[in-house]
Amino acid sequence: MRIGELAEVTGVSAPTIKYYVREGLLPTGERTSPNQVRYSPAHVRRIKLIRAMLEVGGLSVAAAREVLAEVDSPDRTVHGMLGVAQSAVTRSAAGRGTPQEWERAERDVAELVRRQGWAVKPANPGWQALVQIVVTYRDLDRDDLLTLLDAYAGAAGELARAELATVADVPTTDGKAEGVVLGTVLGDAALAALRRIAAEDASARVGSDHRSA
Amino acid sequence: MRIGELAEVTGVSAPTIKYYVREGLLPTGERTSPNQVRYSPAHVRRIKLIRAMLEVGGLSVAAAREVLAEVDSPDRTVHGMLGVAQSAVTRSAAGRGTPQEWERAERDVAELVRRQGWAVKPANPGWQALVQIVVTYRDLDRDDLLTLLDAYAGAAGELARAELATVADVPTTDGKAEGVVLGTVLGDAALAALRRIAAEDASARVGSDHRSA
Repeated sequence: MRIGELAEVTGVSAPTIKYYVREGLLPTGERTSPNQVRYSPAHVRRIKLIRAMLEVGGLSVAAAREVLAEVDSPDRTVHGMLGVAQSAVTRSAAGRGTPQEWERAERDVAELVRRQGWAVKPANPGWQALVQIVVTYRDLDRDDLLTLLDAYAGAAGELARAELATVADVPTTDGKAEGVVLGTVLGDAALAALRRIAAEDASARVGSDHRSA
Repeated sequence: MRIGELAEVTGVSAPTIKYYVREGLLPTGERTSPNQVRYSPAHVRRIKLIRAMLEVGGLSVAAAREVLAEVDSPDRTVHGMLGVAQSAVTRSAAGRGTPQEWERAERDVAELVRRQGWAVKPANPGWQALVQIVVTYRDLDRDDLLTLLDAYAGAAGELARAELATVADVPTTDGKAEGVVLGTVLGDAALAALRRIAAEDASARVGSDHRSA
């Protein structure tokens, strides 16, 4: 199909499609004459995936480029793809706190990981982000909120197993790759959205003396 | 204390402190002479809270200002604070999809909310974000990922109850208000970080045939 048709099918304008090509997110189409390029159904699907990452998942173009490079890599693995997708969506730690506070929080996170029985090293992109959060809670004297981390960890573990089982059921390599990317990027967004809904329900149930807190 | 001391105690530079005041995030100090302003321990705490929201939670200055205005409001309630904090952290729906796709996804979300027994209306900031995610999964023919939403919802419900119980235990109104803000803003970040760690563990456990997917 030509670029006009591709734009119509995907709902993404031709200039935006050209931008995706320039930014290395979308492979160029096949040039069939000096001023005509043809696109395939694979381009339609790729544009949908790009939109999902940028507009719904909130990834930067640079992060999306990195993830798609891994999706397109011939020697990709589910484990490798997960690493790239995870790095792309994780906010880097702000690095606030003294070295002592940081070390203490590092030990807390290592303990939490041990309690969950997880065989994961501090190089994991989530690890340092979590250390920063522990430093922040402690800096604000909110040890009460620290106690919630085990509940978060338990839920994260259960969901990780469910997500992985879903991805494992997909027959094709392309489908598995895409499942890992979407599970990581949109999974965070879906869970955050559901936390908003669940919190409103829980708060409304507590009743009037809580409301006038 | 003077601004120099405030900067030293908080680790935030004097120009940044002045920026927080100009942006309406931090109340101005007490002017004790034409060129001297004094700050209190309340300013130290507020600066820590601002840093947590901006640097660790990733909120915009505008979103943080809105949340803090509610924290400072004399007629704040836990339920009202939750609404403001939730709106501040939730990505607005991109509005992708046809009206038909949107309506179908609206029905899916309403069904999911009903299955959880949640008494929440579509005006909730998470609701429309979730509709957009359902539209996106369907657009990519990933109904397999849609089936994960009930697991996410179950986890979100459990965590909301645990968070609310923690906040209810805080004796002071200020502490409750801050707990709601931090629970919402940093809770998302903590859960995302733990999902990164749990996913690496789960993926590593699946073994070699999965790796070469």
